[in-house]
Formats: sequence, C-alpha cells, structure tokens
Amino acid sequence: MTCVPDATLLDTLARLLGPKGFTRDPADLAPWLTDWRGRVHGAAAALLSPSSTAEVAEVLRLADKHRVAIVPQGGNTSMVAGATPPADGAALILSTRRMHAIRSLSAEDNVAVAEAGVVLSDLHDAAASIGRRFPLSLASKGTATIGGLISTNAGGTQVLRFGTMRALVLGIEAVLPSGEIFDGLSALRKDNRGYDLRQLLAGAEGTLGVITAASLRLVPAIGLRAVAWVGLRESQAAITLLRRLEAATGEAVESFEIVPDEGLALVLRHIPGTRAPLADAHRWNLLIEAVAPAGAADPADSLGTVLGDAIADGLIEDAAIAANEAQAESFWRLRESMSEAERIDGLAAKHDVSVPVSAMPAFLDEGRAAVEARFPGTRVLAFGHLGDGNVHFNVRAPIGVDDRAWLERDGKAVSAFVHDMAGARGGSLSAEHGIGQTKLADFARTAGPARLAALRAIKEALDPRGIMNPGKLVPGPRAVAQGGRSQ
Amino acid sequence: MTCVPDATLLDTLARLLGPKGFTRDPADLAPWLTDWRGRVHGAAAALLSPSSTAEVAEVLRLADKHRVAIVPQGGNTSMVAGATPPADGAALILSTRRMHAIRSLSAEDNVAVAEAGVVLSDLHDAAASIGRRFPLSLASKGTATIGGLISTNAGGTQVLRFGTMRALVLGIEAVLPSGEIFDGLSALRKDNRGYDLRQLLAGAEGTLGVITAASLRLVPAIGLRAVAWVGLRESQAAITLLRRLEAATGEAVESFEIVPDEGLALVLRHIPGTRAPLADAHRWNLLIEAVAPAGAADPADSLGTVLGDAIADGLIEDAAIAANEAQAESFWRLRESMSEAERIDGLAAKHDVSVPVSAMPAFLDEGRAAVEARFPGTRVLAFGHLGDGNVHFNVRAPIGVDDRAWLERDGKAVSAFVHDMAGARGGSLSAEHGIGQTKLADFARTAGPARLAALRAIKEALDPRGIMNPGKLVPGPRAVAQGGRSQ
Repeated sequence: MTCVPDATLLDTLARLLGPKGFTRDPADLAPWLTDWRGRVHGAAAALLSPSSTAEVAEVLRLADKHRVAIVPQGGNTSMVAGATPPADGAALILSTRRMHAIRSLSAEDNVAVAEAGVVLSDLHDAAASIGRRFPLSLASKGTATIGGLISTNAGGTQVLRFGTMRALVLGIEAVLPSGEIFDGLSALRKDNRGYDLRQLLAGAEGTLGVITAASLRLVPAIGLRAVAWVGLRESQAAITLLRRLEAATGEAVESFEIVPDEGLALVLRHIPGTRAPLADAHRWNLLIEAVAPAGAADPADSLGTVLGDAIADGLIEDAAIAANEAQAESFWRLRESMSEAERIDGLAAKHDVSVPVSAMPAFLDEGRAAVEARFPGTRVLAFGHLGDGNVHFNVRAPIGVDDRAWLERDGKAVSAFVHDMAGARGGSLSAEHGIGQTKLADFARTAGPARLAALRAIKEALDPRGIMNPGKLVPGPRAVAQGGRSQ
Repeated sequence: MTCVPDATLLDTLARLLGPKGFTRDPADLAPWLTDWRGRVHGAAAALLSPSSTAEVAEVLRLADKHRVAIVPQGGNTSMVAGATPPADGAALILSTRRMHAIRSLSAEDNVAVAEAGVVLSDLHDAAASIGRRFPLSLASKGTATIGGLISTNAGGTQVLRFGTMRALVLGIEAVLPSGEIFDGLSALRKDNRGYDLRQLLAGAEGTLGVITAASLRLVPAIGLRAVAWVGLRESQAAITLLRRLEAATGEAVESFEIVPDEGLALVLRHIPGTRAPLADAHRWNLLIEAVAPAGAADPADSLGTVLGDAIADGLIEDAAIAANEAQAESFWRLRESMSEAERIDGLAAKHDVSVPVSAMPAFLDEGRAAVEARFPGTRVLAFGHLGDGNVHFNVRAPIGVDDRAWLERDGKAVSAFVHDMAGARGGSLSAEHGIGQTKLADFARTAGPARLAALRAIKEALDPRGIMNPGKLVPGPRAVAQGGRSQ
C-alpha cells in the first residue's frame, strides 16, 4: 500500500524542483492524466519534472521514505496505459521531459548518449547530423521519448534487422526505487559483471526504477534504399520469399510488412491521394525495404532479381520496385496509413500478438477463420511486421452493429480468444506494446505460476515498498494463474 | 547456509536418476572437481546427470526442500571457476551432459532448439546440415555446452557482427530454484510480457536456476569469406580502419582482431609451421574477416579496395588478403595460437577487460606503459577483440624471475591495477569470462553499492534458500563496496 503525499512532502518537492519542475495546477496536469488512446483516466497529486538525475534520485528517495507512488512518464504514448496514474489521485507523475539533452554523439564509437526525455525524432536528427542513424522508428516518433521507448522495449518497422529497443541499448543510467543511482551508462559491447540490470530495466515499464539516460547504438546512414510492393495469393509464400531475400542479400532487408487486400482497400477509400501500386488486387500485399550503405551495390538490383525469379516461378503474383524516393514514400504511406484508415472506418478490438515467424501464415489464415466463426459477423484485419512474427490482429464489429456498444459488450471476450489463439501457438499477447494496465488481466490469466512468481519476486526485491508505477505490468497476488507451465 | 545432503536424500536421488544419472564414485567425480585452468579445486557429495527437464525439476525441488547446494556444470570450461564446487564437499554437481538432444532445427525459422548439454561444435554441425550456421565460436567449442555458454553469456570471435550469446538466445527453458519449470522456449522475435527472465538467466552463471534448453538464432551459411592480415603502426588507426570497413561493407565484417608485434613473434617462435603473412614486422597486426552469403558479391573486393586506399593514404603500412582457404586458415592459426604460444613462453597474470571501443587504442598504449612503470620489468601482451573493445590484457613476469613465485606474490596487485585502469575508463573487469569465483573479490571491491544491492536482492528473491551455485558471481554481504556510484 502506498500513501497520499502530505503537504510537507509536497512543499519539500516544490522547493527541490522549483516552479519549472513542480506543479499542482489542474490545467498543467490534465494532458498527462489520460492515456494516448483516450480510454483510461487517472489522477495525480502533482506533476514533477526534475531537470537532472540528481533531482530524480532525491525525488525517489523522498517517495520511498514517505511510501508515495511515482508514475514515470515520457511522451505518454503508451498503447496500454502504462504511464497513466491510478484513479486514486495519490501518485506523483514524474515527467522526464526536462531531461532532453543528448549528452554525447560519437561517429567513431557509433554511440549516442541521450537523456530519458529526448524525443525519438530529435535523436534521429542528431544521428543524421554525424552521418549515422538510430535504427528504430515508429508512428509516435515525434512524441515518444527514449526513456519510455526503453521501458516498453519498443519495436517498430526495423526490428527485422536491428532488433527491438533492448538490442540497441548499450548502457543505462537509472535511479533505483531506493534513490540510489545505477550508473551502467558506459557503452561496452561486452560486459559480464553479473545479472544484466540494463536488460532488466528495459521493458520493466518503470516498475523497477526510473531510467534517466541511455547509451544507444548508432549504425551507418542509409546510402541507397530499395522499396518494393508485392502482390501474392498465399501468406505462406511470403515467408519463403523472406528467406530467399535474406539468403541473397544478407541483412539488407530491414522491413517486411504485410497488408491484406481489405486493408489496402480501406486505405485507398479513406486516405486522400493514395493509389494502388499494382494493376490488380491481390489477397496479400507486402512492403519490403532493403538498404545499403553509401558506396555499396544498389539493393534494388538483388531485390529485383529475387522478385523477378519469384514471379517467374509463381511464388508471387506481381511486384513493383519504387522508381524514386517519392514513389518509395508513397508505398510506405499506404502501410503507415493502415491504422488511420481503420479508425475512420470504425472501432475495432485491437491486438498486438506475436507467434514464431513460421507459424504466422497459418495464424493469419486459421486465426481469422476461427475468430469470424466464434464471433459471427466480425471482420478480422491483420497487418504488420510479418518478418518479426508480429501482426496487429484487429477485429471489427459486424456491419450494421453499433461498434462502441459491441466493443463494450464483446471486446474482452474477443481479446481473450485472440490472446489464447496466440498462446496456443507459443506466442505472446504482447509483442510490442507491453502489459501496462489494459493487458494486465489477460496476462495474469495466461502467464503461468513460474513466470508470475518470478516477476513478483523481482518486483518485491527491487521495489519493496511498491512505489514504482503501481498497478502496471506485475499482476497483483489476487490474480490467480491457471494452468501448469508458464508460457 | 546450505546443508550436507543426508543418506536418505542421496538414496532418493539415486533412485530418481538411475545408475547413469547418479554417482558418488571418486573416479567419476574427479574430472569435475577442478576448474578448466587447473587452479581451483573443490569437492562434491555426488555427481547428478539428469536426462530430462522433469528430472532436473525434481532434483531442484528436493535440493530446495533439503537446502542442499547445486552446482550446475556443462563442459566445465569456465575461465573463472564458475562451475567448480565449493571445497566443503556438501554440494551436488548437476551435469547437463546427458541432455544433449537438438530438439528441432528449422531453416525456415532460422532457429535451433538445443538442450543445455549440446556441445557447441555439434550445434555448428547441425546448423551446417541445413545450410545455416550458429554464429558464435570460441576455442573450447569442442567441449563447451549451450547451457554453460548462455549462463556465462559467452563471446568469441564473431561478436562484432552478431553480439554475445544473449543476443542469439531467442528462448529459454529453465528450472527455477523452487523446482518450477519456466517455459520461455518459444522463439519469438518480439515478446513484451514483463521482465525478460531469459535475459536475466543469461549470464547468471547458474545462480538463479538451471537452463535446460534454448532456442537459438541461426543465420545463413557463409558463401564467401575474405580474410586479411594488416600491419600498422598506430593502434588508433585500427579503429579508423574499422569504421571505414563498416561504412563500405555494412555488416560484412565479422572479426576484427588485434595482435601486437611481440605477440606474433611469440607465435612464430613457439608454434611449428607458422610464418609471418607480411614481409616486414609491424607494431600492430590486425586479422580481419569479412563474409557474404552465397550468390552475393565477393567481400574480398570491397575489403581490397578499403585496404588499398588505407595503404595509399598512410593509415596502414601493409596488408595481405588470403588467396585461398588454406591461407585464410593459416592467418587464423596465428591469432588462435596466441594463448598457446604465451603459455609455452611462461605464466602470466591474465585479464579479460573491456572499455568503449574508441577508448581501446589509448588503453592499449597508456595501459601498457602504466603497468610496466608500476611493476618494473613486467611485460604486457594485449591482444584480441579490438572491434568489441575487449582485449586479453596479460602481464608476464620480469625476465629471469620465477614466474610462478611472481604470480603468487604480485598477481593480485597486478590484477587489481589492471581492473582499476579499465574501470577508470568506464570499462569492465570481465568482458567475456564472467565473475565466477576468481573475480569475485575484485568485483565486490569495484561494483558500487547500487549494483551490489540490486544483485543481492535479485539473488535472494529468486533463490531465497541460496542453493544455486553458491559462492559464485554474487558477492556475499561481508564484501564491502567502496566508492559512491556503481560502475
């Protein structure tokens, strides 16, 4: 149990952080009390915006002493309400937005040291300024911050080649719940000194401490890129094509995204200025990007060869390689407009599931059939990161039904059904978004006793007073796990 | 405190595991009681060799109940006595060697599921049989096992491109100290369900449970490789060359190893059949390997262009690209014979340190000067994985001094000095080998309070009775940390 902060503590914090770092003004707090998707509403006693790691350490020391809950917040772009405070209003929001310095940039080391509040697109710009790039990007890049991206182990469209956020983190500086500073910022490519606390803090959703800065891997800037749009009939053929491309180009393939025909149709209907890249409609579409550093062979050559062979032997039906950057952008716009087109079309029960890559074609086909049979009239729209075994598997209401009422009534049952389908294939109910608040119940239901016991033991060990982001990620002891083995 | 196993428990274990899985015969135990380097000697009450995950679970359940120490052991190739039991003889060695099945191999998924006792070279062979490879290799590949390699987060000569063992682990099955089975084996490229227990078990040196199987990443087989030997005067120029190669070839460079002139001289003197690849001697030598998948451009072309330009503009002094596989092997033999040549030449205080890559040239030059000034007459020989910021920084006795007596007398002071030099540059006293027993004191001295507190809390949380590999990795509470921040 955490406590309500008393006036003395709030005064102490106000003096510590100054007027830029402390506010209780409801107008200042309002934007930070509701989650990104507008579904979860919380309350907070104050908004703290420390300007340094030392200030964060002092805040946590005080919070631990007074047993007051801290909710760390970056850009507040969580898809699972992971940064939204509880409704009781006793928590303090700790925003990292004033800690937005890029402390160092090294082209020689291929490392950027960024504070937690650095916005992703600012990091992209900084890396570009030294001829490098930070190879992780996602739709909220103009708002999402480094601290939040690490805490949720964010994914995006380049995971195929470079992995998720945790693979790009070379070092972390964090404040532990005790107020002690963990300085693991040094960007070592090899370091075997005990349990990897950096990897434990990555993906911990702020429940084990506050990440204040990170050393991040940079890679060479893109010299040339080739973007292709592919039409095909069988989802299984997409995996075969991916393996052919990998064999022919090494790790040049950075994105391998799938969009079904009805998804492309939605985009063409709702997003002005879009047009289909291929003459005919195809059951499935792929967006493929391959890149090469400056001076290397044009990736369009090997991409073109593989796609040409695949058309010739009937693996795929058609393909187009973008002739220029404008066309490449227009291909990407089709993929990136999927969520917006879907939203314009109506509400959906959304899922962010993963299965082993080779199991994904069957999951797409059989999963869709199973959902539409179990919930008659519903329409499945699954699209996304096929090369990572991760799709956004969304279920829309039956036509003619009030989608809000349907979601209210059937949403939980649909989600449990989809999550169980993924679990039955060895998959995960959260590939990218984390657990936060909105997936906590389904996670508790499916995690199994070994995983749950380990998570709770770690949480209790590092945050014994339970002040860090309570109610997120770690199911409470009342959540009863079912089944034998953990998944 | 753990307990001595009583006769009843030993009988129960003997019945559970059968004659192939249980022995107390001193002749059977003997090879497993001394570490790989023959410096640390322990004792054990029995050697357990379970044949299945279920048997491991039952062993741990019994050990936990009776509070008996378990020392997991794979190939017993630890460089830090991480698998050698305590001297008190109360522990049970749990060998994974009977769990040596490769449960599945998928070229489509690029995944191998291997049990803990699979020997690394057997995994290499299995991957090759389906046109893939497992991209981690090291000198002890014919003995080291998958479970041990994961538990020590092993490195090797291909870390530059593919990372250490933890980067290749897609899933883990383990038995927790309670005897519960954690089934995290599913090879998901994305899975954000709470704290990453797989990454916590990797590098935990068997102190948090027993890894019983793992899903491991495979990559395309090598189509063509180009191996070069380079001579140069300044270590700093090596880093500049590495960045040029990366820019020109993407991620084709898999190995970037440094050998000093006196190291090459030792090999040429002590290892029969070796010869220098270049006409003249050079202060530093580099061994560089670049690879490409089948059908792609020959990496020798871009490697040759970069090296030619580097000679032309004076960055390096000379270079040779192996004309055929036999010559490539002969270049590699020079690098791989370093440890043997050094051993023939005499004893050394050995260190496995890392610093940020860009700090390595200065560390090589200034570190050597500092050690030889502080310990007059000693001779530093540093070589290894320059591209990873990790060298084997070995200090040999002064000429004419009895090396064994010198090591006995000065070894600890030399090691503390070298470790502190690395620490002062943000480096690690253990890049590859782990902490085990032999680095425990220096780790406790340098780790800092936040890191130590977190390690102890996690150990206590997951192994509250302290049965798993006691005396390894986690400094006991009597080890007093010094200094303020953790490193």
